[in-house]
Amino acid sequence: MTHVTPSRKPRIVIIGCGFGGLEAAKALRHAAVEVTLVDKTNHHLFQPLLYQVATAGLSAPAIAAPVRHLFRTQPNVTTLLGEVSDVDVSARMVRLKDGDVLAYEHLILAAGATHSYFGRDDWAPFAPGLKTLDDAFDIRRRILLAFEAAEKEADPTRRAAWLTFVVIGAGPTGVEMAGTLAEIARHTLPGEFRRIDPASAKIVLLEGGPRVLQAMPNDLSQRALEQLRDLGVEVRLNERVVAIDASGLDVQPSEGAGYRIDTACVTWAAGVAASPLGRLLADSTGAQADRAGRVVVEPDLSLAGHPNISVVGDLAAAQSYAPGHPPRAVPGVSPAAKQMGRLVAANVLRRIAGQPTVAFVYRDYGNLATIGRHSAVVDLVSPAGHFKFAGYLAWLFWLFAHVYFLIGFRNRLVVLMDWAWAYWSFARYARVVTGIEPQARSQRRPGSS
Amino acid sequence: MTHVTPSRKPRIVIIGCGFGGLEAAKALRHAAVEVTLVDKTNHHLFQPLLYQVATAGLSAPAIAAPVRHLFRTQPNVTTLLGEVSDVDVSARMVRLKDGDVLAYEHLILAAGATHSYFGRDDWAPFAPGLKTLDDAFDIRRRILLAFEAAEKEADPTRRAAWLTFVVIGAGPTGVEMAGTLAEIARHTLPGEFRRIDPASAKIVLLEGGPRVLQAMPNDLSQRALEQLRDLGVEVRLNERVVAIDASGLDVQPSEGAGYRIDTACVTWAAGVAASPLGRLLADSTGAQADRAGRVVVEPDLSLAGHPNISVVGDLAAAQSYAPGHPPRAVPGVSPAAKQMGRLVAANVLRRIAGQPTVAFVYRDYGNLATIGRHSAVVDLVSPAGHFKFAGYLAWLFWLFAHVYFLIGFRNRLVVLMDWAWAYWSFARYARVVTGIEPQARSQRRPGSS
Repeated sequence: MTHVTPSRKPRIVIIGCGFGGLEAAKALRHAAVEVTLVDKTNHHLFQPLLYQVATAGLSAPAIAAPVRHLFRTQPNVTTLLGEVSDVDVSARMVRLKDGDVLAYEHLILAAGATHSYFGRDDWAPFAPGLKTLDDAFDIRRRILLAFEAAEKEADPTRRAAWLTFVVIGAGPTGVEMAGTLAEIARHTLPGEFRRIDPASAKIVLLEGGPRVLQAMPNDLSQRALEQLRDLGVEVRLNERVVAIDASGLDVQPSEGAGYRIDTACVTWAAGVAASPLGRLLADSTGAQADRAGRVVVEPDLSLAGHPNISVVGDLAAAQSYAPGHPPRAVPGVSPAAKQMGRLVAANVLRRIAGQPTVAFVYRDYGNLATIGRHSAVVDLVSPAGHFKFAGYLAWLFWLFAHVYFLIGFRNRLVVLMDWAWAYWSFARYARVVTGIEPQARSQRRPGSS
Repeated sequence: MTHVTPSRKPRIVIIGCGFGGLEAAKALRHAAVEVTLVDKTNHHLFQPLLYQVATAGLSAPAIAAPVRHLFRTQPNVTTLLGEVSDVDVSARMVRLKDGDVLAYEHLILAAGATHSYFGRDDWAPFAPGLKTLDDAFDIRRRILLAFEAAEKEADPTRRAAWLTFVVIGAGPTGVEMAGTLAEIARHTLPGEFRRIDPASAKIVLLEGGPRVLQAMPNDLSQRALEQLRDLGVEVRLNERVVAIDASGLDVQPSEGAGYRIDTACVTWAAGVAASPLGRLLADSTGAQADRAGRVVVEPDLSLAGHPNISVVGDLAAAQSYAPGHPPRAVPGVSPAAKQMGRLVAANVLRRIAGQPTVAFVYRDYGNLATIGRHSAVVDLVSPAGHFKFAGYLAWLFWLFAHVYFLIGFRNRLVVLMDWAWAYWSFARYARVVTGIEPQARSQRRPGSS
């Protein structure tokens, strides 16, 4: 006599609801599996537009969709709010910080990245990065309060310091932040102050490397640099930050003498590191973690020796295996995370069906970044080669691409309307400062250390 | 030989940018005066819709307009972000907490009200009130996280406690909060959870008095009560809170035995007190302050013995002096604050011109409150008497009245669009939880004290 175990659906736990985790869960829509989706927050965040929340152009709900609302019509997904404390790979269990335990047959890790201060975490209080909505609110508060403080400051040196804004790192986020800050100072605020001229604000973009937007082709970097300078951004290339404190920062050019900038408003857009979950997983599975804490994965994005654990998005140090080409490192961009999420979901289903898994091939559609009103750079990759353009057309392309990829029809409408309004009126909608008290503690007068 | 002093424009300092302060500053638009408008925040808040931010129906920027943006085309207004620490009436100077000093010839105090726990400030951490955007975010966080916690809770008693929401005080804010909570539980969230049924949530509205909406005529209170009960709100009249802690609250009915409600989500909508500036001013001028800390004013809203200091809005204990009627207390509602602001501005100009000032006459247009989808009560006051209605028509009236009085064309559009979307989809747009960490500290499991 044989025992027939009632067939139970395979349990798949997905950690993280960024682009990778969201796509993996969606790709399992029609599968006979039980998916549990765990995230530290209750929302999927459209990170490419987070800088617009930080610069008061969009409200938070415009780019954040409640996760459980996104999956309301997908009954095989259970959404849980929680933070992972531990993964027990031998018992196949994920432990959450509040004590909950989730058993799995398949685990998909999509916990993403956070900002890295390259070992100088003591800079964090003075130079917030931009990864979460709370980060964006913090930066928005600092920017708006700096103009308020300048209006009240009698001392001209200190006033100039309040009106100095520094962005560190000239990747897409840094370029977008600096461009938007220049627009705010030159177009949004003039006329609203009685004692200062907001247009006199100094926006400094510091970059340790030799050019802005280094992921872009050289000529587009050059165009972006020109557009930034046209907007009035002071771009300083080949210069590194060596110290940051409450009243300013010290800069060291690759040649020549170091100098100091007095400022109370520094944004960190320089470095990213994988979620700490990466090292935790590497420790417990023997997998390799690279310098940024990303987990080195097999061609099919699973872990060596642990085929039931996969890693996607910014947490994975992945290679693309295009037929006829040597393996190539996958960049940390949202299209790559989404493609990884979809592949891993399909591979899990293949494994359940007893079929061989498939290696990841990154399909590169190119790169785009906006600098400000009417200015952007686009590098489209097509089978016929690169298609590069800059300026007004690139800006329109950027705009519609971002609206198209926004999650949820409602949010697309809202963002389009907010942008149309901002375009015609030059006004910025979300200039609301909340939580002034905690801020007052950490923001001191610049130039007074 | 006579010295001719070059004529300097009279300096008017306005403290507070709620409805009263805003109207006073706007009414001085064409006057040859120098206005300085000081507020603790950078925005004018449309408080009648604040409960919708707390219940995730609107984003914060939809109901908050940056003060200096509102006055960008009124050059005689200087806006300052700051908090008053002291008023020196003999030297005619206002001191701000950051050390700034503002001299004035005329002072208008419009600092508004805050919530009062009737001497039980220790309840504040467990039962936040609803006066600022930060309050609204706090309440939104508690509501949304309670449903998240319920989804994770295995113990049925605790799960029921997480799904219990208590609103204390059945004035307009309490009624609106309770009605909206019922809608969220019954219409917005069902289908999104896998382990709990959000529709089983219990919404309790506690009121110490004998009826809801006591400022309304009796029959409209009755209609509102019926509408609340139709929505599934448990309304408990003649019952007082005697203790609140992290895991629930103790209630004492006016007759019968006391009992306990286990809950982690309590909203305080019971009491208001004037800003502490009221008592400060009373101490330094010898003016009377009433029990709620409001300053007793002369018929023209100035202080006895200090004709150059006026008080408006919720900070004033004012009387209306309609010709042919006995003086009547002015209610703490926004139309009254706006009317006081306009009168005081006109009185300041009269005083500057050497003319006698005018007594305040409150023009009462009536009262309205919404309960939920398609339900509201309206009590219109016209020369021909009261015009009372309830239900669908009242709800439409409430809706358009609120949109009409919103500050700024942009915000009207946004709120209308958000409402239209919420109406057709039953979805709530702003379900974003931020600042989870600080919350986790203050919100403990209910029913586990």
